[in-house]
Amino acid sequence: MSNNPSFILNKINDVSFEDRPVPEIKDPHYVKIQVKKTGICGSDVHYYTHGAIGQFVVKEPMVLGHESAGVIVEVGEAVTSLKVGDRVAMEPGIPSRYSDEYKSGHYNLCPHMAFAATPPYDGTLCRYYLLPEDFCVKLPDHVSLEEGALAEPLSVGVHVSKQASVVPGDVAVVFGAGPVGLLIASCALAFGATKVVAVDLFQSKLDLAKEIGITHTFIPTKGDTPQQSAQKIWDLLGEKPTVAVDASGAEPSIQTAIQVLKEGGRYVQAGMGRDNITFPIADFCSKELTAKGCFRYGFGDYKLAVEFIASGKVPAAKLITHRFKFTEAEEAFKTVMSGKAVKVIIDGPEDEE
Amino acid sequence: MSNNPSFILNKINDVSFEDRPVPEIKDPHYVKIQVKKTGICGSDVHYYTHGAIGQFVVKEPMVLGHESAGVIVEVGEAVTSLKVGDRVAMEPGIPSRYSDEYKSGHYNLCPHMAFAATPPYDGTLCRYYLLPEDFCVKLPDHVSLEEGALAEPLSVGVHVSKQASVVPGDVAVVFGAGPVGLLIASCALAFGATKVVAVDLFQSKLDLAKEIGITHTFIPTKGDTPQQSAQKIWDLLGEKPTVAVDASGAEPSIQTAIQVLKEGGRYVQAGMGRDNITFPIADFCSKELTAKGCFRYGFGDYKLAVEFIASGKVPAAKLITHRFKFTEAEEAFKTVMSGKAVKVIIDGPEDEE
Amino acid sequence: MSNNPSFILNKINDVSFEDRPVPEIKDPHYVKIQVKKTGICGSDVHYYTHGAIGQFVVKEPMVLGHESAGVIVEVGEAVTSLKVGDRVAMEPGIPSRYSDEYKSGHYNLCPHMAFAATPPYDGTLCRYYLLPEDFCVKLPDHVSLEEGALAEPLSVGVHVSKQASVVPGDVAVVFGAGPVGLLIASCALAFGATKVVAVDLFQSKLDLAKEIGITHTFIPTKGDTPQQSAQKIWDLLGEKPTVAVDASGAEPSIQTAIQVLKEGGRYVQAGMGRDNITFPIADFCSKELTAKGCFRYGFGDYKLAVEFIASGKVPAAKLITHRFKFTEAEEAFKTVMSGKAVKVIIDGPEDEE
Amino acid sequence: MSNNPSFILNKINDVSFEDRPVPEIKDPHYVKIQVKKTGICGSDVHYYTHGAIGQFVVKEPMVLGHESAGVIVEVGEAVTSLKVGDRVAMEPGIPSRYSDEYKSGHYNLCPHMAFAATPPYDGTLCRYYLLPEDFCVKLPDHVSLEEGALAEPLSVGVHVSKQASVVPGDVAVVFGAGPVGLLIASCALAFGATKVVAVDLFQSKLDLAKEIGITHTFIPTKGDTPQQSAQKIWDLLGEKPTVAVDASGAEPSIQTAIQVLKEGGRYVQAGMGRDNITFPIADFCSKELTAKGCFRYGFGDYKLAVEFIASGKVPAAKLITHRFKFTEAEEAFKTVMSGKAVKVIIDGPEDEE
Repeated sequence: MSNNPSFILNKINDVSFEDRPVPEIKDPHYVKIQVKKTGICGSDVHYYTHGAIGQFVVKEPMVLGHESAGVIVEVGEAVTSLKVGDRVAMEPGIPSRYSDEYKSGHYNLCPHMAFAATPPYDGTLCRYYLLPEDFCVKLPDHVSLEEGALAEPLSVGVHVSKQASVVPGDVAVVFGAGPVGLLIASCALAFGATKVVAVDLFQSKLDLAKEIGITHTFIPTKGDTPQQSAQKIWDLLGEKPTVAVDASGAEPSIQTAIQVLKEGGRYVQAGMGRDNITFPIADFCSKELTAKGCFRYGFGDYKLAVEFIASGKVPAAKLITHRFKFTEAEEAFKTVMSGKAVKVIIDGPEDEE
Repeated sequence: MSNNPSFILNKINDVSFEDRPVPEIKDPHYVKIQVKKTGICGSDVHYYTHGAIGQFVVKEPMVLGHESAGVIVEVGEAVTSLKVGDRVAMEPGIPSRYSDEYKSGHYNLCPHMAFAATPPYDGTLCRYYLLPEDFCVKLPDHVSLEEGALAEPLSVGVHVSKQASVVPGDVAVVFGAGPVGLLIASCALAFGATKVVAVDLFQSKLDLAKEIGITHTFIPTKGDTPQQSAQKIWDLLGEKPTVAVDASGAEPSIQTAIQVLKEGGRYVQAGMGRDNITFPIADFCSKELTAKGCFRYGFGDYKLAVEFIASGKVPAAKLITHRFKFTEAEEAFKTVMSGKAVKVIIDGPEDEE
Repeated sequence: MSNNPSFILNKINDVSFEDRPVPEIKDPHYVKIQVKKTGICGSDVHYYTHGAIGQFVVKEPMVLGHESAGVIVEVGEAVTSLKVGDRVAMEPGIPSRYSDEYKSGHYNLCPHMAFAATPPYDGTLCRYYLLPEDFCVKLPDHVSLEEGALAEPLSVGVHVSKQASVVPGDVAVVFGAGPVGLLIASCALAFGATKVVAVDLFQSKLDLAKEIGITHTFIPTKGDTPQQSAQKIWDLLGEKPTVAVDASGAEPSIQTAIQVLKEGGRYVQAGMGRDNITFPIADFCSKELTAKGCFRYGFGDYKLAVEFIASGKVPAAKLITHRFKFTEAEEAFKTVMSGKAVKVIIDGPEDEE
Repeated sequence: MSNNPSFILNKINDVSFEDRPVPEIKDPHYVKIQVKKTGICGSDVHYYTHGAIGQFVVKEPMVLGHESAGVIVEVGEAVTSLKVGDRVAMEPGIPSRYSDEYKSGHYNLCPHMAFAATPPYDGTLCRYYLLPEDFCVKLPDHVSLEEGALAEPLSVGVHVSKQASVVPGDVAVVFGAGPVGLLIASCALAFGATKVVAVDLFQSKLDLAKEIGITHTFIPTKGDTPQQSAQKIWDLLGEKPTVAVDASGAEPSIQTAIQVLKEGGRYVQAGMGRDNITFPIADFCSKELTAKGCFRYGFGDYKLAVEFIASGKVPAAKLITHRFKFTEAEEAFKTVMSGKAVKVIIDGPEDEE
């Protein structure tokens, strides 16, 4: 009998489908969700191909996936905000309610975080998944489940904009025009930035940037110094940017970010590439820049991501280039690995699967 | 006739005394000050021995000195807050009143700043110096002119604490226990930090740290990794620090600062050492740290520095190890270069000089 | 010979046209502007009919008008950002460059402010007017001079949004749907508020609110308590607002604002009505609300107002209901007094006038 | 057999001792505390004499007391930070771990708060009381249990200083020199205020203010307007204050607070007196003041209160004027009601009671 079909990473480059037990609600604040749509994230692929990210190592078979939306099929006794049949975006990381980080409003930094598809916690590429009600965001009727799945990477964009304190009148540069970079750029506009430059080495990515409304695009010239790239961006904008975000992890991007910023500007590191980079500390200091890390997302970010999709401020669905059935999950991952896709969505298991 | 005796840097390692014209008040908001005490700063010494700091190059003979206090001898027609005979700490950098940076409350970032003893602007090692009245802070009767001169480096400490948003309950680590590092550490306590660790390679500097009330000291062990140093500081404190400041410019200090900070902590770069350093960007990102540069000081910092001295919260005078007459200025500089001194004070020219 | 025709308030309800001398540039940072469009503000009318606002009393004949845009006809020697022929929005209040308020980034609080058409300073309903270059905002080609004049009241809306710290996801209520209230409401949307409720007693004003894109409108029921009105607004929104702004000056509005806000919400008083009101301090306290005053506008507000017009985020021009020639200025004022107009614009003097 | 002797408010002015069941730990994050010292708060007295505060009405007999410290006698299975024998300050209000307010770092605003001695929740004037471990703050060895009990009202002072954003250099005025007012004033100094004025009608209270280190005191003259009182405070200080706190609930104090503040100043309402007051909204607006409510205390406040006591920054113990045995609890309350006491401490039940 098929119960809870799941897509499992056994070890590096070894995946399989497995029928896991259907999880049961024990905590009365939890709901059971039938997963309907799941996006593939770079971290899913990295576990798939490398078996680890930093200190997180896949030691036991683990369900992949954490960018999901679904439909409530059961609610715990204490649940008041959701009912069976509600369509929800699923926030995939559950912190400890007792940690100081949670208590102080920064739950993304909780050391006891249980995050989907981060070892040893199973992910959402399955039929049934449990979440506390307050980690579900109900979708408005006109927002699709696919778009609900995109709330996860968009929440990163929201959190970056908050870390960067983007306000109306800001001028932003975002390095890297992959799915997260594009969502960050779009979020910066939704937060009121007057101009946003998407920077990438590939014209096709920048074409998509234009399509989703990013005001400016820039391709760095090979061999240019960070100072030379900065000058070209100033020429493009007619002014110096107040915000720079790196979503590429590339050293030249980070160095250009520091050069290009206006005095007093704000820089956010939005994704992790190399462990160490050569950093222009003297220029950082003399311009009195602010730099911030950004790790996942926190209070209110998921809700705002859904609002940005609902209002059309962030046309996230335009990033979806490929769709697969649950049974085609492996092919979906291969497609992402091929570099041909922007955002790939996998359906939840069908009822007969 | 002796008018305005001045101590001049002609070119690298070439200094002389010269009798310059007495400056005249042209702008009615200015006052004329007879300089009485001047501290020697690392930047003065660097111009002396290297002729340049970054883009600032000594091309014409330049009066040295910018950490000064003196007595008002003349006031412009529009001056209302000061009168002849007032003893004042002298803030040595005058921005443009029309720049956006000044207008928005960040005058230290003004690109038109005229800063004493930063080429091409003459410094304060002379008898008479002009300043706008609002760049003078009147000294309370019980604050000495020597202490008034120390308001300059202490303002850096104030500005660092503001950049780090030090609040009561914070635990801070300050790397480097030279004069500026010690004043930063003392300021952090004045801003309410519960514990402050001064870090340096030399026990003598840490002894002075203890003497001015810094709660903890730490000497890194040669060969330790940043992670190992961080662990030792955690053991010393019994907790993770929320604030780290580098006043050393040394790469291992900055790397240790990032490792030692608690999640969500704040790091300030307080002085410029090398142009580029190897920076642990992944750890910076995953802990969601905030980093800020710190360039000189801004609105209210000089006034607060004088208040900290007046209240005894920062016992700045304890840093003074050597005193010289104006005519001994060259010897004063040699003493700083020897590394034997902490803070050296040079008298203003005597009336007969 | 006609030189600088001006529209003068001699004393209460006594106006006249007068040919004043053409002002000459003395400060090299100033420009001379030929005024082209001027909006009438409630304060202009109040001086007209009452001769005073608070401590500001019209004792000498005073040129009226302060919401203006025009064309540069001459520039001082130090001017670098503007040239003859440039079309500019004219920020009408010039603070002292030496005040602490200016120096700390809060020039609107400068006690030495010289504000157009606030006694004893003449206003802008004349042909030629002088301003420092940094108090002019150059208009993009597609922004009309009429819209440029609207940058003045819109700057109040910008400043209110900043005082209220409106961020994406906020839900705002604005009491009073006169020109300033409507611009505040529109600004709140431009700052990212998800929903904004315009509240007024008159349906016609709320129809205009809808026309400029305000998401919700509400007419209070006569005799309702603040608690009852608050409940109706909660029902309308489906949630409690996080921001409330009073632009009506009416006591019931302010009381409703405090009742309607969510715990931790922010309230801004945007205009002055009565000197004292009965304030629900216990509810204010137990909900830990924040209240802020709002006085004119400050650094960056005028520039952002022009950007909001240029981008179409705030469709300010839709508020203009009447237009008059300069020689019809008295009729223009009478129209405002009649209550029939929303925003009235007066042309600058024609060349032959 | 005596188990959990408790001091009960049955109804208005009707108290009794009762032996209640010893509570049992059910949640593994909880500890059981033997209460050793309890201070009497104005709210305890208000329930005693009026039976209600606002919407909170005593309908069933309720144990009084919420300012307590004690010794851990049992720990739940999940407890890691405390052990039997630890001496702790007891934070008496437990919010829901699932509320948005808790999740966002503002748990004092949680609508599901269970607060000791606030109906229907029992207080701490008993032998045994249960708390989650993270709502206990371990006392350093040199801090007495009496001082631990004072952490409760001192936490209000900490929270007020945070709401007022007191920073070094601020000048503060605190209206009302009862226990909470004095602790607020002392906290403002601990947060770095340069000068703090305690304002009260009674010289004896101001003498105590001086004794605990408050820098200035002021007795308003009967019949003075708020403007006149403000002028006298300016004369006393030699400058305008940047922070004003009302801990009196008196209308003239609040009105004077608004008048006395410097432009851009911050006002905090620290206690609830009347529901409504006449508020000078026009002056509040034109000076762009910020006002904030203050309700109990939040994340980190209790810990900082204990640190302020431990470091001697706030000499809280000096406020204790009377001490009573548990069996004398009624007399202790009568003493507070007589107005002769500042802070009264009641011992926990002795082992034989």
